[in-house]
Amino acid sequence: MSDEQLPSALPETHRTRHRRLREQGRLDRAELDAVLEAGFLCHLGVVVDGAPMVVPTVYGSDGRHLYVHGSVAGRSLVASPGAAVCVTVSHVDGLVLARSVFEHGVNYRSAMIHGVPRLVTDPDEKLAGLRCLTEHATPGQWDYARRPSRKELAATALLALSLEEASVKIRTGGPDDGDGPDASLGIWAGVLPLTSVWGEPEADPLLPDGIAPPPHITARAGTRTG
Amino acid sequence: MSDEQLPSALPETHRTRHRRLREQGRLDRAELDAVLEAGFLCHLGVVVDGAPMVVPTVYGSDGRHLYVHGSVAGRSLVASPGAAVCVTVSHVDGLVLARSVFEHGVNYRSAMIHGVPRLVTDPDEKLAGLRCLTEHATPGQWDYARRPSRKELAATALLALSLEEASVKIRTGGPDDGDGPDASLGIWAGVLPLTSVWGEPEADPLLPDGIAPPPHITARAGTRTG
Repeated sequence: MSDEQLPSALPETHRTRHRRLREQGRLDRAELDAVLEAGFLCHLGVVVDGAPMVVPTVYGSDGRHLYVHGSVAGRSLVASPGAAVCVTVSHVDGLVLARSVFEHGVNYRSAMIHGVPRLVTDPDEKLAGLRCLTEHATPGQWDYARRPSRKELAATALLALSLEEASVKIRTGGPDDGDGPDASLGIWAGVLPLTSVWGEPEADPLLPDGIAPPPHITARAGTRTG
Repeated sequence: MSDEQLPSALPETHRTRHRRLREQGRLDRAELDAVLEAGFLCHLGVVVDGAPMVVPTVYGSDGRHLYVHGSVAGRSLVASPGAAVCVTVSHVDGLVLARSVFEHGVNYRSAMIHGVPRLVTDPDEKLAGLRCLTEHATPGQWDYARRPSRKELAATALLALSLEEASVKIRTGGPDDGDGPDASLGIWAGVLPLTSVWGEPEADPLLPDGIAPPPHITARAGTRTG
């Protein structure tokens, strides 16, 4: 685990280069951090017997690594250490409704990270990685809930993926056919925004009376994520 | 394109069998349809040069096929026809906050489809597939917006993936440590729900005055998706 900062510009490799829609590609590492910061669910791609497998799982990021549970794609990742993975994080911000079906699209922010994950074995790094995962999904929860015991820690497989090789794509704004021939069709065009909102905390039915949700949970209700 | 219905029970193959959390696996095709119906963004996994690549893209489903644009992972899918893909659709319904960090989790609904996609070449099926894609994201839009011209249709690559080999995983409910030793810790536990909500339509700045958004768009504002 190196303390070295990653370069602020995202690298151009044959996998991260933006081919189709160059205008949507972002090359600043701060944009990668922002996309990762905005969510907690990623889609982890692995190759199993030559075929792809895409598994949804939670992640955490410390700006240099992305951490995921090693168990999620257990048989594939454990069965083939050293195998490449691709982790993709996507946020949908709205539907882009154009005059023509052909020009319809989606406003989104997406990050794609390529690499060979490392199984975290050092207990201190494992604890730090799990803290990162927990705090990423629910800030404040690591200091509130009971932390992992030595036994639980041993039973948890944690993977660290370097954020070195990553790309970001973002689309914002309205449709692109507002100044073309379809503009005269009299068809409404614009964006239908989509947001993710936290609801009110729902107590476990088994919870004894008198235990209120902590402020870091209640403060989240009604706020947006993504 | 066969009119035959797929069997109502999802198949158990070596890829769809639920290994880790059997209780979360669903084997009814109606549950697959419901998960697919609830969203419009999928994560498409392909193998490029032996490494996985996971691309977010919109999809449509007619209950027998899943349709995606063939351009999304263009170089990979076009470069290797006959290659297997994995399409995963995931909805997050909430964070499961347990007494211990170890028992934390996510309430979610997820579908995973495996197969070799087929490039749709028949113009009628292509049109039907694009209608399916469009209506899936925005019901009512196919009859409202300008439909694809012959030229646009030719420029659109569409892939059809059979829903034959698919699996569904769903987690609902509160944390699992309410009757264990941690229950006496006095730590709040429960679920923090997350919902996706459509906002008010935002008109394209280039839209002339006097063109109102159609009812199928305005009716969506404030409603939930997912």
